[in-house]
Amino acid sequence: MNQVVHIAKESIASFFRDAFDRIRCQPEVYEPTIEALIEASLRGVDSHGIRLMPHYIDEALAGRINLSPRLRFQQTSPTTVLVDADDTFGAFAAKAAMLKCVDMAAGFGMGCAAVANSTHFGSAAIYALAAARAGMIGLSFTNSDALVIPYNGKYPFLGTNPVCFAAPCEGEEPFCLDMATSAISWNKVRMQRISGLPLEAGWAADGSGEPCTDPHAAVALLPSGGYKGYGLAFMVEILCSLLTGMPFGRHITPMFPVNRDRRKIGHALIAIDIRRFQDLGVFAARMRELMNEARSQPAKSGSPVRVANDPEKECQDVRSRSGIPVSSAELAEFNRIASTLGLEIAKLGGR
Amino acid sequence: MNQVVHIAKESIASFFRDAFDRIRCQPEVYEPTIEALIEASLRGVDSHGIRLMPHYIDEALAGRINLSPRLRFQQTSPTTVLVDADDTFGAFAAKAAMLKCVDMAAGFGMGCAAVANSTHFGSAAIYALAAARAGMIGLSFTNSDALVIPYNGKYPFLGTNPVCFAAPCEGEEPFCLDMATSAISWNKVRMQRISGLPLEAGWAADGSGEPCTDPHAAVALLPSGGYKGYGLAFMVEILCSLLTGMPFGRHITPMFPVNRDRRKIGHALIAIDIRRFQDLGVFAARMRELMNEARSQPAKSGSPVRVANDPEKECQDVRSRSGIPVSSAELAEFNRIASTLGLEIAKLGGR
Repeated sequence: MNQVVHIAKESIASFFRDAFDRIRCQPEVYEPTIEALIEASLRGVDSHGIRLMPHYIDEALAGRINLSPRLRFQQTSPTTVLVDADDTFGAFAAKAAMLKCVDMAAGFGMGCAAVANSTHFGSAAIYALAAARAGMIGLSFTNSDALVIPYNGKYPFLGTNPVCFAAPCEGEEPFCLDMATSAISWNKVRMQRISGLPLEAGWAADGSGEPCTDPHAAVALLPSGGYKGYGLAFMVEILCSLLTGMPFGRHITPMFPVNRDRRKIGHALIAIDIRRFQDLGVFAARMRELMNEARSQPAKSGSPVRVANDPEKECQDVRSRSGIPVSSAELAEFNRIASTLGLEIAKLGGR
Repeated sequence: MNQVVHIAKESIASFFRDAFDRIRCQPEVYEPTIEALIEASLRGVDSHGIRLMPHYIDEALAGRINLSPRLRFQQTSPTTVLVDADDTFGAFAAKAAMLKCVDMAAGFGMGCAAVANSTHFGSAAIYALAAARAGMIGLSFTNSDALVIPYNGKYPFLGTNPVCFAAPCEGEEPFCLDMATSAISWNKVRMQRISGLPLEAGWAADGSGEPCTDPHAAVALLPSGGYKGYGLAFMVEILCSLLTGMPFGRHITPMFPVNRDRRKIGHALIAIDIRRFQDLGVFAARMRELMNEARSQPAKSGSPVRVANDPEKECQDVRSRSGIPVSSAELAEFNRIASTLGLEIAKLGGR
């Protein structure tokens, strides 16, 4: 029933542009937003990819998103900046903030941006990778609404609060670790519901806070590694809520239902100029050496030992050639948006 | 058999000073080293506490440690510094490096030190807490010799590579997350061996890389949260080996056996000046609010929901009053050192 078609990224981008034009969003705002969604899908991070576009449009139509924002950069030292995202799309604000961090790091060694009044920024990797491609170590963080149960707790308190770290590597795309601090993503629960497979113990909990393996009973996630993932989520909340002055945990407006309430999400972005510590060429060559040594380790199962971002790089190679898989459910959502906005969807015919 | 006496921190410090004096270590070098060991023990982090002192003395006597080092600070930008630890005690180098980060952050918003040619620095929390007590966000990282199996691998490749993050809180000691990126510490394996209790599944592996629950069969640790802990260990290795130019993973001189081979450990330390983002008083008050809200969450078991560093704070209160527990095995080790150095150990009579 849920068939998949493969659609070239250019066709998807073209449809998305038409949709964002139709809601009178500025190209300056929507281009990085579309780019973030498509890059996430190319990398296989489908939970944070193109399937979010209908949600973003719904949010815009509900009045939650400022489509003509004025980003305000308050430079508070040579290396620190407070960014007011003016309630626009998170990807636009976060990308601009990370480029500012890269500039500050190029001039003064490091850069840190705390982004206030933002919304969902998609995949954290997009921003850390942008710094790594500029020869920097990049870190990106965002908070999100409460979905994860504290260690020894019963009910969600913090979000899936991801930690992302990227660094450049000779001859290939950067190393990039992009991990939710929960055991799994909520998308994994939804996938198990569809596939009929159980959850592993320690992944999720039911409405009374008891760990459960039935994906249909799951209403909350458990932290990765118990108190460690819970502690990392706290770290992310401090960086994203307390540095920015934004609400934390259960005070954050949930992603759903979609209404006109502003999300007030916070992000933190950091760039560190590698050249201030080592010759960039030497660093990148040693990164390659470290990563290849890891990849050559004896493996337990059939697949080899890999390094963070290896699966995403492989996926990006494949999908850049053969297109992004779009399920019939996703296509129906795109059709709904097209119909709402009075757009042709012929471009998404698949191939 | 393994009886415990409680000894006041002052008595322990006094004995340690005598021992370090006897090996002709400079007070400038040993004071922060002793302080780090005692603070770790007070905080209940016994694996990184006073029990390490005999090991440190053994290393010094073997010629591994430079007892009259000259720390070299190469300032490469207003916010970045390369520190050459000159093969001395890690705690001395790391503390000085973090204080330098705090200075840089006070002047320019942020500070990052990469410490090369170092040795075991004890508990990562010591340095992040020092930054937090100065009104900064502090991060500290160190690499260590290979003990943890990569996700899907069979043999150790990276160390337990801790991540540590601290931030100040109104009216109490800072928030502080200090976590090995392995599922457990090696010390936990040793404790289960002594207590006769099994390991939990997913904690450790035997010599063929198979997960095992028999602590006597365990020779390696597994990463916390599978690929997530493995990815975080990789991040720490990049910060500590590649920014510093030090060896990585299996190329690092192991802690044991003790010989004259230099360890060539690397550390990374970061300070971020909170005042550049928010009023420090407001930040600290909101920290308190966030932490207290977490602590008031309904709990699953008898003990309440806690926040990273809560157990350590409670322990520090108790042990500051009633002394640090020293096992008879540890006391025997102290006696061995006293005997080697021709020292009286009467000071450690316990109470």
